[in-house]
Amino acid sequence: MINILLKDGDVLGADGQVRRADIAISSSIITQIGSVTEQAEQIINCQDKLIVPGFVNTHTHAAMSLFRSYADDMLLMDWLKTKIWPAEENLTAEDVYWGTQLAIAEMLKSGTTCFADMYFFMPEVAKAVAESGIRAVLARGMAGVAPTASQALAESENFYKEWHLAADGRVTVMLGPHAPYTCPPEYLKKVTALAEKLGSQIHIHLAETAGEVADCHKHYGKSPIALMAELGVLDHGVLAAHCVHVAPDDIAIMHNKNVRVAHNPGSNMKLASGVAPIPAMLKAGICVGLGTDGAASNNNLDMLEEIRLAAMLHKVHHLDPLAIPAKTAVAMATVQGANALGLGKTTGRLEVSYKADITIFDMQEPHWHPRHDRLSLLTYAAGAHDVHTVIVDGKVLLANRRLTTIDQERLIVEADRRGLRLVNHSSPK
Amino acid sequence: MINILLKDGDVLGADGQVRRADIAISSSIITQIGSVTEQAEQIINCQDKLIVPGFVNTHTHAAMSLFRSYADDMLLMDWLKTKIWPAEENLTAEDVYWGTQLAIAEMLKSGTTCFADMYFFMPEVAKAVAESGIRAVLARGMAGVAPTASQALAESENFYKEWHLAADGRVTVMLGPHAPYTCPPEYLKKVTALAEKLGSQIHIHLAETAGEVADCHKHYGKSPIALMAELGVLDHGVLAAHCVHVAPDDIAIMHNKNVRVAHNPGSNMKLASGVAPIPAMLKAGICVGLGTDGAASNNNLDMLEEIRLAAMLHKVHHLDPLAIPAKTAVAMATVQGANALGLGKTTGRLEVSYKADITIFDMQEPHWHPRHDRLSLLTYAAGAHDVHTVIVDGKVLLANRRLTTIDQERLIVEADRRGLRLVNHSSPK
Repeated sequence: MINILLKDGDVLGADGQVRRADIAISSSIITQIGSVTEQAEQIINCQDKLIVPGFVNTHTHAAMSLFRSYADDMLLMDWLKTKIWPAEENLTAEDVYWGTQLAIAEMLKSGTTCFADMYFFMPEVAKAVAESGIRAVLARGMAGVAPTASQALAESENFYKEWHLAADGRVTVMLGPHAPYTCPPEYLKKVTALAEKLGSQIHIHLAETAGEVADCHKHYGKSPIALMAELGVLDHGVLAAHCVHVAPDDIAIMHNKNVRVAHNPGSNMKLASGVAPIPAMLKAGICVGLGTDGAASNNNLDMLEEIRLAAMLHKVHHLDPLAIPAKTAVAMATVQGANALGLGKTTGRLEVSYKADITIFDMQEPHWHPRHDRLSLLTYAAGAHDVHTVIVDGKVLLANRRLTTIDQERLIVEADRRGLRLVNHSSPK
Repeated sequence: MINILLKDGDVLGADGQVRRADIAISSSIITQIGSVTEQAEQIINCQDKLIVPGFVNTHTHAAMSLFRSYADDMLLMDWLKTKIWPAEENLTAEDVYWGTQLAIAEMLKSGTTCFADMYFFMPEVAKAVAESGIRAVLARGMAGVAPTASQALAESENFYKEWHLAADGRVTVMLGPHAPYTCPPEYLKKVTALAEKLGSQIHIHLAETAGEVADCHKHYGKSPIALMAELGVLDHGVLAAHCVHVAPDDIAIMHNKNVRVAHNPGSNMKLASGVAPIPAMLKAGICVGLGTDGAASNNNLDMLEEIRLAAMLHKVHHLDPLAIPAKTAVAMATVQGANALGLGKTTGRLEVSYKADITIFDMQEPHWHPRHDRLSLLTYAAGAHDVHTVIVDGKVLLANRRLTTIDQERLIVEADRRGLRLVNHSSPK
C-alpha cells in the first residue's frame, strides 16, 4: 500500500542529476522511484516542483533561537561573557522546550528534516523532537570546567539510555563534550570511557578560533586535533563542529580517524572565526556536512543559506571559482550531512529503501526562471520560503507551507515572551 | 489629501533606530511620519510589520536574468567566452524587454525600489521601467573595442535625450563605458566629452579582477583608478562597480574625486574576483552602495542577501566581528545606495519630503522571533519572501506579495521560452 505518492516531480539524485519521476512512500520508507501507477492514499502533485533529500543540519544549539538578534557585531568573548552566558543562566527546562520548538518550526519551514543539537535540558529537546516529528541527533553539552561537570556526565548517560533510538528511531543520542578548552584531558578521558561503555559517538567543537588553537599549543604542545587523538576521543566516531583552524597534519589525523566535520560557514563568517580549509578536507576524503550553528550566532537556521555560503565563500577565499561547485555544496547539506551524523544508510538520499525524509521546493517564483539548471537554481537563487512540503519519516510535517504538528501561533507567543524575559529587556528595540 | 496611510508600523530611520509610527503619503511624496490622524484614501495596516526605505540596487544587468543558471562554477574568461558572450549574440530587443521585466518582478518582490542598470537595447529597458513603475538609473553599455563602439556613443546620446528624467522622473540616464579593459583611452576621452556635453554622470566597471589591474599596470603603468583620473573620467560624477583590487593610493584618488562605489559581494564571491576593501573605503569617507550584479553571476537579485553578505564577508575576511555592523550594511542598501546613484536628496530615506519608495516586511515567520532587535533581524535573519508590500513613487507595486503592474504568469512564459531559445538547449537540465 502506498501512503503518499509524489507525482511528476523533478527529483534530485545523489549524483546531482535531476530527473522527472514519481516517488512512492509506504509507512516511513521510499518504496519506488520512477513511473508509479498504483493507487495511493494521498497524492501530492509535484509538477513545477523540485524534490530533494531533506536537509541535514549537522550542528546547532536549537534553543538558542530565543537569543536570536539579542547581541550581534561583538567580539566573541565579549558576546559570550556579557550577553549569552548571563542570559543562559536564566534558562529553564520549559524555555529550552519552547526555544527548541521555535527552531524546529523554522527548520521545517526551510526544508531541514534532521538536525544535530548540543545543549542542556536535553529531555526537553527530545520531547520537542518527538512531538514535532523531525529527526535529530542529540547531545547533552558537557563542560569539564563547569560546576555541573559530574552532573553532565550522569545526565548524558541517563539521556542516552532513555532516548537513544527512541521516537520510532528518529532520535539518536551522542555524547557532547563541549570543546577542548572547556573540557580538560582528565574529563575527556571520563567522556571517552562513557562513550566506550555506552557504544555512543561524540559531538564536539574543535578548532573554532585561532585563539583556541594557540592556547592549546601553549598548554599541551599540540593542536586540539592532535590532543583529541592522543586522548582517544577520536576513536569513538566523532562529529567535529567548525574545524576552522586545522593544519595539514590535523587533516591527516582527521582522515585517519574518520572524523566527520560540521562546517558552519554562516557562523564562522558572522563571528569572524575564519575560513575552514574545506576544499583541502574534501580532497583528503574527509566527510563534511553543513550546519547553521545556533541562531544567536547566525542568525537563522536556513540551510539553503549555508549551501550558498559554502559554495561562494571558498571560491572567493581561494580566488578559485571552481572551489566548491553547486553539486558539492548540496551534497554537503544532504548525503554528506547524513554521513556526518552516522545516518548515511538511513537518510540523506532519495533512493528506494531510504527513509522518506524529503523536501519539496515550489519553482514558481521569478527567481526560478528560466530553468537552465535546477541544481544551480537551488544553490544560487532559491529562497527558504520556496519550501512547499516537508516529509520526515514518511509523515507530512509541512503542507503547502503550513506546519502540521506545531501550533505556530502559540509557539510564537511563548517564544517572544520567554525570549524577552531571559534577557530582561526593559523595552525591546 | 493623504493617498496612502501606513498605520502602526515599526519604522527604520536613517539613524538605524526603529520607532513605532504612521507614514502618510500624498501623491509620490512622504508627507508625515509620526502619529497621523487624518483620513486617507487607502490605509495599510502595518502592525507586526517593519517599514524600511526601498532597497537601492546600485549595479546590475537586468536582462541577464535570462541567463540565470545557464553557466556556473567556471573560470571567468571561460564563462564569458564560451557561454555568456555567444548567448548574448542572440539577444533581441524584445528579449531585453522581457528579461528586464523578469528582473524587475524579482527585484520588487524582494524589496528593491530602484536599480542601476548597464546593458544594451536600453530603450526597451526604459520601457519596462516606465511600465512597471520602478525607479532606475540606466546606462547603455559601451565597449570601445567592439564593432559597435561608435554606434554605442550615438545611442547613448539619443537615449539620454529621450529618457533622462522621463517616466515622471523615475528614469535617470548615465553614460556606461563598460570598463578600462574594453574602452581604450581614446574612446574614454570621447565618452567624457559626451558626458560634459550632456551633463551626464558615468557608470563603469573598475578594478573587478586582479588580472585587469595587472594588465592595466602593464599597458599604462598605472592602476585603472589612476588611469581613469588621468583621462578625466572621474570628473563627471562616477558610479564605479566592484573596485575589488584597489590600493590605498587608489582609495585616496576615489575619495578626492568623490567616486561612489557599487559593492557586489555576491558576484565577487561567486566569480572569485576577490574581497573589496570596503572597511578601508568607508573609513576614507567614500560612499559605498550595494549591488547584485547580473543574475547570471549571482544568481538572484536579492538585496537582502547582499546586505547579509556585506555584513558577514568583511568580518571573516578581516577576522574582525565589528568590520561591517548591521546598521552600516543596511545603510549601504538604502541611504548610501541612493547617494551612490546621485539620488540621495530624493530617495533612500524614510523622511518627510522624500519620495515614497518604501518596502514593508512582514515579521510573522518564526525567524523574526523573538524580536530583541529588528535591525539585526532584517540583516541576519530575514528572507526576501518576507517582503509584503512595496511602494515606489507613491504607488503600490507589490500588494500582499502580488505584483500590481506586471502580469507574472505571462512574464514567466516569455522568460522561459526566450531563455531556453537564447542558449539553444536541446533539453533543459
